[in-house]
Amino acid sequence: MQAKGMPLDIMYAMDLDQAKQEQGRLSRGRSWIETFRDNVNARALEFVSNVRKLGRDDPRRVFHSLKVGLALTMVSLLYFCQPLYNSFGVSAMWAVITVVFVFEFSVGATLGKGVMRGLATLLAAALAVGAHHLANVSGRIGEPILLGIFVFLQGKIDYLSIPSLIKQKPKSLLAIAAVVFTFARFYATIKARYEYGLVVFILTFSLISVSGYRDDEILKLAYHRLSTILIGGSACIIISILVFPVWAGEELHNLIASNMDKLASFLQGFGHVYFGMTEDGVSKQDKSFLQGYTTVLNSKNNEDNLANFARWEPGHGRFQFRHPWKQYLKIGARTRRCAYLIESLNGHLNPQAKPEIPGKIRETCTEMSLECGRALKELAFAIKTMVKPFAAHVHIENSKSAAKNFNSLLQSSGLWGDNMDLLQLVPMATVVSLLIDVINCTEEIAESVHELASMVNFEAVESTVPPEKPETGQSKPVKSSDDVQTVIPVVLSL
Amino acid sequence: MQAKGMPLDIMYAMDLDQAKQEQGRLSRGRSWIETFRDNVNARALEFVSNVRKLGRDDPRRVFHSLKVGLALTMVSLLYFCQPLYNSFGVSAMWAVITVVFVFEFSVGATLGKGVMRGLATLLAAALAVGAHHLANVSGRIGEPILLGIFVFLQGKIDYLSIPSLIKQKPKSLLAIAAVVFTFARFYATIKARYEYGLVVFILTFSLISVSGYRDDEILKLAYHRLSTILIGGSACIIISILVFPVWAGEELHNLIASNMDKLASFLQGFGHVYFGMTEDGVSKQDKSFLQGYTTVLNSKNNEDNLANFARWEPGHGRFQFRHPWKQYLKIGARTRRCAYLIESLNGHLNPQAKPEIPGKIRETCTEMSLECGRALKELAFAIKTMVKPFAAHVHIENSKSAAKNFNSLLQSSGLWGDNMDLLQLVPMATVVSLLIDVINCTEEIAESVHELASMVNFEAVESTVPPEKPETGQSKPVKSSDDVQTVIPVVLSL
Repeated sequence: MQAKGMPLDIMYAMDLDQAKQEQGRLSRGRSWIETFRDNVNARALEFVSNVRKLGRDDPRRVFHSLKVGLALTMVSLLYFCQPLYNSFGVSAMWAVITVVFVFEFSVGATLGKGVMRGLATLLAAALAVGAHHLANVSGRIGEPILLGIFVFLQGKIDYLSIPSLIKQKPKSLLAIAAVVFTFARFYATIKARYEYGLVVFILTFSLISVSGYRDDEILKLAYHRLSTILIGGSACIIISILVFPVWAGEELHNLIASNMDKLASFLQGFGHVYFGMTEDGVSKQDKSFLQGYTTVLNSKNNEDNLANFARWEPGHGRFQFRHPWKQYLKIGARTRRCAYLIESLNGHLNPQAKPEIPGKIRETCTEMSLECGRALKELAFAIKTMVKPFAAHVHIENSKSAAKNFNSLLQSSGLWGDNMDLLQLVPMATVVSLLIDVINCTEEIAESVHELASMVNFEAVESTVPPEKPETGQSKPVKSSDDVQTVIPVVLSL
Repeated sequence: MQAKGMPLDIMYAMDLDQAKQEQGRLSRGRSWIETFRDNVNARALEFVSNVRKLGRDDPRRVFHSLKVGLALTMVSLLYFCQPLYNSFGVSAMWAVITVVFVFEFSVGATLGKGVMRGLATLLAAALAVGAHHLANVSGRIGEPILLGIFVFLQGKIDYLSIPSLIKQKPKSLLAIAAVVFTFARFYATIKARYEYGLVVFILTFSLISVSGYRDDEILKLAYHRLSTILIGGSACIIISILVFPVWAGEELHNLIASNMDKLASFLQGFGHVYFGMTEDGVSKQDKSFLQGYTTVLNSKNNEDNLANFARWEPGHGRFQFRHPWKQYLKIGARTRRCAYLIESLNGHLNPQAKPEIPGKIRETCTEMSLECGRALKELAFAIKTMVKPFAAHVHIENSKSAAKNFNSLLQSSGLWGDNMDLLQLVPMATVVSLLIDVINCTEEIAESVHELASMVNFEAVESTVPPEKPETGQSKPVKSSDDVQTVIPVVLSL
């Protein structure tokens, strides 16, 4: 339609303008859509590559996910098969819930959670059903029995209040039980290992004593809940043990060894980096091995968890059922103390004016840290392969004699000349003193590794020196087997 | 009855013997029962005293247990009130389950779990119901819509396979979803904060898509589960906020301050203990303050958890909703690094032959650690009371000048005499060098505390020196307010 009193060319121009604006809007719209799509695509690609990396870093994660899928599929048969559904009904979902909550990454964690869930459910169900039953019959035969029990145990409890409490106040019973067991979760020793069991206990007890209010449901609920949880729990446990099992014990074993290995790498490299003497193979830039130890500093939590899980695991591979996992924690604690010292040492690696240090002292210091690193590497290798660490003792002795050597060098005035600056000596003395602390700590680690070795009968293999690339000139060759033979009695007497 | 051919007196003797044995057995039995009862009583008493200690150490634990009981009682009304029971039926147990799993010690943890549980249930229910619905209608109108969506987003997905998959293989859908989301739990950034949400998501999705197989139940299940979870979750959240709330943020705030305080106590005592100079008030045996720092070494996990919980909390007391909790983690990390150094220092406290050290050097070293400890104490006090830490800078400068003083003392040959033993100097030099590292670390901590102070506008109070018992002779008095005034611009320019 044409507006009144408006020249035709203006109208046309307006139309053109509008058309252009329309087009602009459209193209802006399209570009906004395109940007959005590109964004989404880029994000998706980044996400996919992240996920791939996650899977590549540890393929067991992928297997774990598949295992959970398998367990859920198996358990969902309770729903999909008509005969099974007829017998369990809606309660079949408890099996699904059990699988989702119980299936963990390692066998130990799954076993622990599964067994605790089963036992706690059984116990809570028995208690709740029993209390309910007692409340019903307490007038006739329950009271004398309760009387006997309480008189026998304490002689003091106002026993009469309990049955009447159960009978008249199901809500108070529930509340009291919840309060008591919630408080029990704080109980330190329980908290670490049995917390999940307590949660399930509170849950089942609450559910069943609440349902107990409606008589017709209580036994059915208890029975269904228990049987479906057993089905779900055993599906988890069987699959986690049979299909590509991940053993928490083995994880702990490897973690302890690799932590020690990281400290060893630091120490083996430290001397060369501190005195600016790089080996032929190692460029000055490649110092990543110096940062490995930082993960050891905060490993306590991880180790504690793994040891808790490992206690649930049956014998597997090289590990018996009652493998001394506590000893691993002891070794771990000492390794961590060594890591703290290394953290302090690391602060002295930062670029600062290095004092003029005589070549002989440099060599001695380098050897101290090198030999100490070798000892740790040997100990880590011994744990990993479960053979007795003979050569470690030799390396520790070497580093100790290097330390003694340093002391005598320090006192020989000839080395320093007359115009010695004490101020220059301080950083150097600190490094050596920390290294000596590290050596002492390594000796303690070696001691606890030997304890472990005698506890689980590590194999006695004569030469356990791990294959390592030959060091250049300034390092001392590993002592011959003659020395090792003389050391054995010392080691065995530890 | 009398046995044949046996004299009567022997028979009597046998009877007597038997009677004695019988009596002995009885008394053994009674004593066994008594021992057992005594054992049980002793254990019970020990348990009760342990429990009492648990409650006395932190009365909030008792309140927490009572709060859980209150929440459970409230939620159990769904069962006990007939009209409520009529509308929810057996689904009321979801409310109980929610309370048991969601109610945590701190408000932040409860809020986080509650909100995640609600959202994850909503999302999973919507997805599962949607997928189920799509599968039913996909032949008619679903397919074109899906077509549009997938072409728009990617243009590549083989969209046709999805509806048919949902339709024909509910089990595969369930398995695939479980596998995907279980794998997602490994996704590092998700793991720390949203793991619980993912578990609930997997659970709800599995439950509902399993039930989806039986048409009549799916919508009812989704609706009931969602509404009862909302009821249970909000009961938890309301009670945890209104009744004696325990704020994770406040816990973190206090933890960081108290960790710093522990390091300060060590440093303030270190000099006196190392040089064997005990203060009047402190006996040589009372060295418990020297061990306080060990808990700081492994505090990372606790701090991370508290910061995660604190992010969920609304503003409370002195803390806004978006309080910079990350800055606390930064301060915590630096405090921990300082604790590692102190662990190395602590190794030098063990009884060993102390070198003969001139009195002046002793005084300087003692002052270094004392002033550094005061700085840390000031910083801890500033965090706790949320006022700007002016005096900390003064103390740090004092300890730095003491360090410089030490250097010049070391170089003045007059102090040492001619027959100086370098070997005696090494442990001394190590301690001083570590102390200097600690001072540097303290300076970094002070820097991050100042950052925090400017982020959340700490109050500027002129004198913030905490009340502390006066030190004896060898310590320098805290500088007067004149000095503090000159320091303020420096502090503010940080």
